[in-house]
Amino acid sequence: MNEIAIKTLNGVNVEQLMDTIEAVKGDPEIALFSFRSNTQWIKGGHCKTEINGFYGAKQEDTSRSKPFILEGDEPPVLLGENNGPNAVEAVLHALASCLSVGIVYNASAMGIRIDALNLALDGQLDLHAFLGLSENVRPGYRQLEVKVKVDTNAPREKIEELFAYVQKTSPVLDIIRNPVPVILEIVKV
Amino acid sequence: MNEIAIKTLNGVNVEQLMDTIEAVKGDPEIALFSFRSNTQWIKGGHCKTEINGFYGAKQEDTSRSKPFILEGDEPPVLLGENNGPNAVEAVLHALASCLSVGIVYNASAMGIRIDALNLALDGQLDLHAFLGLSENVRPGYRQLEVKVKVDTNAPREKIEELFAYVQKTSPVLDIIRNPVPVILEIVKV
Repeated sequence: MNEIAIKTLNGVNVEQLMDTIEAVKGDPEIALFSFRSNTQWIKGGHCKTEINGFYGAKQEDTSRSKPFILEGDEPPVLLGENNGPNAVEAVLHALASCLSVGIVYNASAMGIRIDALNLALDGQLDLHAFLGLSENVRPGYRQLEVKVKVDTNAPREKIEELFAYVQKTSPVLDIIRNPVPVILEIVKV
Repeated sequence: MNEIAIKTLNGVNVEQLMDTIEAVKGDPEIALFSFRSNTQWIKGGHCKTEINGFYGAKQEDTSRSKPFILEGDEPPVLLGENNGPNAVEAVLHALASCLSVGIVYNASAMGIRIDALNLALDGQLDLHAFLGLSENVRPGYRQLEVKVKVDTNAPREKIEELFAYVQKTSPVLDIIRNPVPVILEIVKV
């Protein structure tokens, strides 16, 4: 193996990952991040979110030359025009994206090569609460199922160890599995 | 006011909304939805999610001619290449999009005209857990702040009533504020 092959695995710069861990050990403030979004309502169920700067590693990030735009809307059966996936579908992407990063980064740190990775998600939701027809049904997902396919030459017990670790440390999995306080403020009417 | 002006408010077909509520009262199964996503890992922190069909109103939805594609990645400071917003930023969009729909649909049902609506979100996250450096810090957001600006001619108390109702019935707000069980299964190694 040449030097580049040692430093990078699964497209992850393992050396930078180890350096980041060492840096945070030396200065815990490096690990404090603040992420932001700005959403403009367009019409009906349609909105557009801009995501650009964030604070992290003790400074404002300037790596993005223009904002990412995410559109949200409902399908016609939910009174929208399909200008984008709806909000609960966006939750599925957020969770899958987080698990993907968690699996690949930690596999790289453990020396596991991943050849392919696919995550299929399914969530069941009862609209009674959203429509104001029941206070006994929760508005959100009753349950989420995640089916993961991994192509790797690592043994199954190694992958199970990896998945157990990812489940303990995944930010979005924690946000969904456990309560997060949300403070809502009307700043202008 | 002509007939069209009565039926549609804020781009929401209020008549269809009322019809949906009546239909669900008559047959609760109409309210059962199942949403799905499929995510393919690309390289490093980069993945692509396809969102297309879902089950709802007692049938498979066929309204979307092609899948929505959402890309996720990390910024360079988190070892990625900025091919998309990261997973915890996608959570912010999901929440804002859900609140936008909740505010606008319920305002329409209450006869409140919304002229403009903006949601600014901010979430604080400590990477110690993700980096495996602490089991006392949670991996996800410690707290989320949502600042809402509304342009409307409705009185403030009416808007506060609307917001209180939206907070009780928003699917993604419920998913974030309260625990959702997530079942993770490795279907292939």
